[in-house]
Amino acid sequence: MRFTSQTSSDGVTEQFFTLDEIPGVLWTPEDASAPRPLILLGHGGGQHKTAPGIVSRARRYAAEGFAVVAIDAPNHGDRPRDEEFGRIAAEMRAGIAAGENPGALVAGMHSYLAGQAVADWQAVLTAVQRLDQVGAGPVGYGGMSMGCGLGIPLIAAEPRIRAAVVGLLGVHGLAEDAARITVPVQFLVQWDDQMVPRDQSLALFDALGSAQKTLHANPGKHGDVPSFEVDSSLRFFIRHLS
Amino acid sequence: MRFTSQTSSDGVTEQFFTLDEIPGVLWTPEDASAPRPLILLGHGGGQHKTAPGIVSRARRYAAEGFAVVAIDAPNHGDRPRDEEFGRIAAEMRAGIAAGENPGALVAGMHSYLAGQAVADWQAVLTAVQRLDQVGAGPVGYGGMSMGCGLGIPLIAAEPRIRAAVVGLLGVHGLAEDAARITVPVQFLVQWDDQMVPRDQSLALFDALGSAQKTLHANPGKHGDVPSFEVDSSLRFFIRHLS
Repeated sequence: MRFTSQTSSDGVTEQFFTLDEIPGVLWTPEDASAPRPLILLGHGGGQHKTAPGIVSRARRYAAEGFAVVAIDAPNHGDRPRDEEFGRIAAEMRAGIAAGENPGALVAGMHSYLAGQAVADWQAVLTAVQRLDQVGAGPVGYGGMSMGCGLGIPLIAAEPRIRAAVVGLLGVHGLAEDAARITVPVQFLVQWDDQMVPRDQSLALFDALGSAQKTLHANPGKHGDVPSFEVDSSLRFFIRHLS
Repeated sequence: MRFTSQTSSDGVTEQFFTLDEIPGVLWTPEDASAPRPLILLGHGGGQHKTAPGIVSRARRYAAEGFAVVAIDAPNHGDRPRDEEFGRIAAEMRAGIAAGENPGALVAGMHSYLAGQAVADWQAVLTAVQRLDQVGAGPVGYGGMSMGCGLGIPLIAAEPRIRAAVVGLLGVHGLAEDAARITVPVQFLVQWDDQMVPRDQSLALFDALGSAQKTLHANPGKHGDVPSFEVDSSLRFFIRHLS
């Protein structure tokens, strides 16, 4: 793990790093030295580790004492694109433009990325937990849309993750992994999501194996999650990780 | 308005009162004298103004600075039962036992009570707002199940109510009043509610006219709302009434 830059503002330190081929960012409270709970943030499709929605949540969580990590997903951000990804992305766009079932097309893309994404997160988690200011404490995961599509297999596979806030995605391709998840989950639905049919969202919530799961639905389209849900996710992580 | 008893504990003062034929309870922070936001709490069917779920929420809200009022609904608690109510209640129980649509039967009961319940709440609201320790500030309403069934017509009719937490009820008989509601609403659904079909709950949330509405769904049956939803409702009222 190699740190490439460090800046601090408003009480939060932001460090860019690379671990092998994976570019990432670590946010911690300024001058943090003792272990603390860690939150992994997975970005949406076509976005990257410093998308505005990731940075604002990361800084908010870090200001409350958490360590937070975001990485570029495979074929996203500063990482190289492979030919197969380009082919799948083009097919997905053409299919959606032609009116095909977006759930199946999006699930195909996530399925292509998930194996590598899960391995990346597991390697980053191991490396970050070796840092004095993080340590081997409880871990949460937060990710919407593609961050949910790659997060569900990760949470199902990774026993170190104890709680998750996910959503903005349907059940397509995820039912089996969702059923294996038993940790507390807060699940977000946008009631008028133009990309995810409502019944498919509700079916993914339904499929989660967790005894403690809670669904929050709000009016508006895919990108219109209200800002109070950031506060709510913070309280959820405090409740389950602190 | 006649106060009949007053006790204080844990920083909260509880005063029983009657207004004409309506028995009620007012909770305020101990030694409160200045105006403050007010929350009206409507109890569930067959319950009363000091049901455990009402008292625990009332004391929690009052400890945070709110004034809180609960009253016995018509034909509930310390109020007399009329013959027509007895007939409707018996029909409802027999119909549910015989496997009839509970949504229609419950809606019939609520419809019988709603006219009186709305008038009661409006009179109590006027009287309570004349007290120095309450005043004419913003008002919220909280009520689940029958407390939602009687609350939806009240919120639709009463412009002094600025925010509401309702739920555990289906759309039957309530679509028109729900569509007239424009204030922020937090709406609770129990995912495995044995008394309210899931699609009927979601349809009532859908029917609310409010631009700011947020749905919280949790696993479990009608009575299994998790305790963290009390915290969440408190934050909702603070956000919209303070």
